[in-house]
Amino acid sequence: MTETIQADSRAFLALNAGSSSLKVALFGATGDRALVTGQAERIGPEGVIKLKDADGRALPVVSGDISNHDAALAAIIATVRAAFPGLKLAAVGHRVVHGGVNFTAPVEVTEAVLAELTELSPFAPLHQPHNIAGIRAAMEAFPGVPQVACFDTAFHRGQPFVNDTFALPHRYYEQGVRRYGFHGLSYDYVTGEVARIAPHLMAGRVVVAHLGNGASTCAIMRGRSVASSMGFSVLDGLPMGTRCGQVDPGVILYMLEREGLSTAEIRDILYNKSGLLGLSGGLSNDMRTLEEADSPESHRAIDYFVFRVQRELGAMAAVMGGIDALVFCGGIGENSRVVRRRICERLGWMGVEIDHGRNAESATIISSEFARTAVMIVPTREELVIVRAARKAVGIATEAA
Amino acid sequence: MTETIQADSRAFLALNAGSSSLKVALFGATGDRALVTGQAERIGPEGVIKLKDADGRALPVVSGDISNHDAALAAIIATVRAAFPGLKLAAVGHRVVHGGVNFTAPVEVTEAVLAELTELSPFAPLHQPHNIAGIRAAMEAFPGVPQVACFDTAFHRGQPFVNDTFALPHRYYEQGVRRYGFHGLSYDYVTGEVARIAPHLMAGRVVVAHLGNGASTCAIMRGRSVASSMGFSVLDGLPMGTRCGQVDPGVILYMLEREGLSTAEIRDILYNKSGLLGLSGGLSNDMRTLEEADSPESHRAIDYFVFRVQRELGAMAAVMGGIDALVFCGGIGENSRVVRRRICERLGWMGVEIDHGRNAESATIISSEFARTAVMIVPTREELVIVRAARKAVGIATEAA
Repeated sequence: MTETIQADSRAFLALNAGSSSLKVALFGATGDRALVTGQAERIGPEGVIKLKDADGRALPVVSGDISNHDAALAAIIATVRAAFPGLKLAAVGHRVVHGGVNFTAPVEVTEAVLAELTELSPFAPLHQPHNIAGIRAAMEAFPGVPQVACFDTAFHRGQPFVNDTFALPHRYYEQGVRRYGFHGLSYDYVTGEVARIAPHLMAGRVVVAHLGNGASTCAIMRGRSVASSMGFSVLDGLPMGTRCGQVDPGVILYMLEREGLSTAEIRDILYNKSGLLGLSGGLSNDMRTLEEADSPESHRAIDYFVFRVQRELGAMAAVMGGIDALVFCGGIGENSRVVRRRICERLGWMGVEIDHGRNAESATIISSEFARTAVMIVPTREELVIVRAARKAVGIATEAA
Repeated sequence: MTETIQADSRAFLALNAGSSSLKVALFGATGDRALVTGQAERIGPEGVIKLKDADGRALPVVSGDISNHDAALAAIIATVRAAFPGLKLAAVGHRVVHGGVNFTAPVEVTEAVLAELTELSPFAPLHQPHNIAGIRAAMEAFPGVPQVACFDTAFHRGQPFVNDTFALPHRYYEQGVRRYGFHGLSYDYVTGEVARIAPHLMAGRVVVAHLGNGASTCAIMRGRSVASSMGFSVLDGLPMGTRCGQVDPGVILYMLEREGLSTAEIRDILYNKSGLLGLSGGLSNDMRTLEEADSPESHRAIDYFVFRVQRELGAMAAVMGGIDALVFCGGIGENSRVVRRRICERLGWMGVEIDHGRNAESATIISSEFARTAVMIVPTREELVIVRAARKAVGIATEAA
């Protein structure tokens, strides 16, 4: 049975607006279970809306017009209202990729905040403008309802200078060219879960590997981010579905000078044609497809991915002077037993030893009983971090875990 | 007393031609002690030649014209001939930064080889053309004398695919955009020394940190390079005197799009204005100067350098599944006890523990007696690797160590 919202109960919406998608999750005033989840996909003439209720049943879509973000949000809202006639939206939380140097926590959106977020667009040109469009659409749709911006960079802003900077002329640091990290909402959620599942680990050195279509690692000491593999943009660090990860800056100079490529062409290669897709010779950006393919091309991509993750885990451990726990999350981290096994295989020297049975079951704790380093899987829920921030904005504290 | 060369004895010259310098070392047919070392500096109208004999005494310079590489080499030769009238040059060895995919060992230079090296210039535009100019100058000066090219990339060419590639469209790998590594002559020499000093370590996992004005790390298993921190160009990996080391490719896109910089301006920033110099706000690219300065600016640079070296050491260990020995070389690695101490401080989890007395003395072995991981200092001698290759080309085997 579809859960209903009482006429006097308040609902909270988590919104994640990308270039061609709008992901939503609707929650009540308490609880971690979403009433509605789904998204508008391929926003434009061919767009579709897919929403399901808490039991996984599709909601009948009210309007199909999703030619832009405003229309997509309106269609989603209409669909949700039809299913939950009593809906009273108390606040909307937004995923915003870039909070710059100043935003170290979620913030209620004002015109001044929006202006500041807009100024950060050059730092994340492929994401930030869409995030802002999502906020504007929600402000239009729900006048007077608090809008809360939640930043993927905020969790990392306390990192020490040595991880925050590049070895460029120092003025770049001052003008905001820093290692922002990203995936902060995921790391925030996972850190909370580790604290709940194994509180003693929070006194130690935890490395979280967020391995999905985007991928990064984060070194966390006493619950705080001290280093991460992503840097200034969402390109750096680990290879991703279509993004390159770590690349020698000399390669970009080579593309410019020797290949005569334009900035736009280089951007397209690094963001859209590299990573697993590029390594596999165009086969796929999806780890599941690559695992099934079992071809020389797919092996190239998977081998490199595993190698770079191992390399980064060693680096993260070195930054903290050791490691007490390794936590996998993200689509690949949560679902690929093969990739997890292969990553852990060579990490015995770091005290990592997994129980193959538990790993095959994707259990929460997959390390062997007597292993020195705990290995865990924590399915990440960025939307929950967003909705908690939205609830907090109207005075609802998240229940203690 | 200046050593003399017998009229019938053969001499061997090691040449390292840079953009504005020409470094030389002259050896006899055997032995590791150079008869002459020195260089032409600031090649051009203001250039100078500085040469000293095996006892460190300056040789009187015969001709001061060093307006270009040819003239500089002629002046050096004239000076050496005046000091060693019996000089009979048997072969010349050259340091060549880039050997591409094909050159995996030193090679005697032919016109065909020169053509191939010239084709590699786009991969190392700041070094390769000067290396080639040095070879041409030596061919002019010593017609008929074998010229042997020794490559900084050769030592790494056996690396597995996963360390050789980037996660770019696969065609880049095929067209030679790979992680070439560099500092290979240094790693080659140091590996030989480790084998001599502690043969048992050669069965294990050795990380060499070549820390000088250029800097990189190399993971060596059973005497072979399996990974390194430098990549396609000499920019990548560790921060250096004026070079940036690892930088998010998104930063280059930012420089292009937001700052409107030209490729030449970006190249100049990354090669000449970054690294220790950039981080210290222009204070110095020299670790000694930075250590003496003891200011917030110098601390920024040193802290970052130490942090990135630690990070890379963890990564190198992870690639090999652990570490049995850490070897320092290069100007900073050999001479800065403070940097060595600070790097090792946080590496106890990797079995690293140094004896502070031995470290202060820059002893060969500086690890504590019972430390699990050996820590060594091996002063590197790239010129000796070059001269050994030159000797080998005329049939003189290097005496067993």
